[in-house]
Parts: sequence; C-alpha cells; structure tokens
Amino acid sequence: MEHNLPHTIALLTRTPAALNALLRDLPESWTHRHEGENTWSVLNVVAHLVYGERADWMPRARMILQFGEERPFESFDRLGFTRDGRAKSLEQLLDEFASLRSENLGALLALNLRQEDLDRCGRHPSFGAVTLAQLLSTWAAHDLTHLHQISRIMAHQYRDAVGPWSAYLGVMQCAGHGAA
Amino acid sequence: MEHNLPHTIALLTRTPAALNALLRDLPESWTHRHEGENTWSVLNVVAHLVYGERADWMPRARMILQFGEERPFESFDRLGFTRDGRAKSLEQLLDEFASLRSENLGALLALNLRQEDLDRCGRHPSFGAVTLAQLLSTWAAHDLTHLHQISRIMAHQYRDAVGPWSAYLGVMQCAGHGAA
Repeated sequence: MEHNLPHTIALLTRTPAALNALLRDLPESWTHRHEGENTWSVLNVVAHLVYGERADWMPRARMILQFGEERPFESFDRLGFTRDGRAKSLEQLLDEFASLRSENLGALLALNLRQEDLDRCGRHPSFGAVTLAQLLSTWAAHDLTHLHQISRIMAHQYRDAVGPWSAYLGVMQCAGHGAA
Repeated sequence: MEHNLPHTIALLTRTPAALNALLRDLPESWTHRHEGENTWSVLNVVAHLVYGERADWMPRARMILQFGEERPFESFDRLGFTRDGRAKSLEQLLDEFASLRSENLGALLALNLRQEDLDRCGRHPSFGAVTLAQLLSTWAAHDLTHLHQISRIMAHQYRDAVGPWSAYLGVMQCAGHGAA
C-alpha cells in the first residue's frame, strides 16, 4: 500500500507500549543475551531505537522540509547508541523511548504536513533522492524490523531448549538477512 | 540456555499485553492484510494463538503427565482457527487470548511441577519422545515466532512505501522460512 500518514502515526504511537509490555522486568536471560559474537542483545536494540529518536527521524524530516535536496542527511550511525545508552538499564531505556517518541510525534503533528510536503525530496547520502513519505514509512518499518529482531534474539535463547520443535518454528531459521 | 520454568512463565505472561498494546484499534490496513496468496493476516495469527491456548499447550502438558509416552498427542491443526475464530474481530480475539492465557498459566502453576515432571517424556506424532520442558519451551518460542511473523506481515504492507530503504530493513528480506 501507499504511505498513509495517519496509519504511520498509529503504528509509531503503539511501539513503545508494546515493547514495554513485552520486555519490562523480564529476566535478563531474555534481554541481555545476544545471538553470538557481534550481534545485539534486546537491550542494545532498545538503546538503538532511543538513539534513532534523537538523531535520525525528526532531524531528517526537518532537513527535507528546510533544505530539500540541497544538503544530504548526516549518515545515521547504527552504533550511535554505544555512546549514548550502554550504561542505562532496560527500564530506563524503555521510559526514554516512550518519552522521546511521544515528543517526536507531537512535533510531527505540529508540522501539519500536506501531500505536497510528503512528496518533497531530500538527499540520502547513499540512495540519493528520497521523499518525506518514504522517510516516515521507514520510521514505522524500522520499528517493525527491530520487533522482528527482538523476537528472533529472544527465541535464540531457547534454540536448544525446544528440542526437535525448532524445525517447526520459523523464527529459529531466521538468520537476520544481513541486517536487523 | 536450558529451559527455566519461571523464565518461560515470565514470557508467556507478557505476550497478550504486548500484542494488545501493538494491535488494538490499529487501522485494518495493518491487521487485515496478508503477504500474498495462502499467507496469514495479523488477524489470522491472533486467531491461531487463541486456538493454541485451547487445543495445544495445556492439553499436551496434561497428556505427558498422565500418559507419558503411551499415547501420542493429537496432531495440532495449524488451521484449526478457521473453524474457531474467523468471524471474530481482532479486539475480541485479543481479549480471548489474554483470558485463555491467564487461565492456562493459572493451571500450569497449580501443577506445581518439579524437575522430574519437566524431564518426563510424551510422544509427539512426528518427533517421537519429547519432554515436558521442551513442550513448555516451545510454547514460549511459539509466541516469539508469531511476533516475528506479525512484524513481518505488517512491514510487508509498507514494502513499496519505504522506497530504497527496503535494502536496509532486514524484515523486508525475511521470506518466512517455510513456517511462521
């Protein structure tokens, strides 16, 4: 389907509460373990989501509206959270994610975007021209890619425990597709 | 890691609230569309989870405790929900899932399982001998495989809308691994 701003906002609004309901006060064996060397734990993923709320989505949306294709976005540092959230608890990160997301959605609504704004192009450092609608769609899909990753990281912790059932569990076959 | 009963219960307890926070009152374009012919919508997945609460997990746990390997489990019908929930709204299914899960976890706790119970074997119609610990681990991992699937079904709806960013979104590369 095409990008639809109210549908994007409906999803972006719900992610912090969904992660909170799933993760808060879970035993650390679910949230602090990863899938092997150089992979992320659930704690790392939530820290990355927090970092994106600060550094990625709304700053890029504002750049598109202000500069169009004149200036490329700053590259987004997937590991930016390592300078921002490593020492925080999962509970602090969940609170921070909820609060930043809520502020960002307030700011997005205040822009009163019209279709011509959504069609406006900015310049991505690798892809070239991208529209504001594509950026906002990606913000929502990025939540989903990390929910997908979180469910996979957690399932990995029970890879041995499920015994022969692993053959029936798609999540156990998922290798992450070279990305989240 | 090994199966750990309190950790399994911690996860099983949280899934209904996480799905509720993510899905309730979302626009139907997220929840009622699928990934193509013969694939499930989010509504179908939640109906399948409800059916599992009735027909799969606790009935099999009780069979292991009562009959051990003497009698194989009934085959679990992945499409059983089509006879059980098709006509229900997503909101009704979310309520039903929360209520059945809560009843089932109450019943599980009431069994007061000891390690020797968890090590007890039942007979799976395809795999042969499986332990109660493996069944309970699979119950938790089954929640995760469907959370993984739900995030993928929803992301699929924005496959075109994200434009070139789809290359950076792992969930967009996930084909479902021949299972959920």
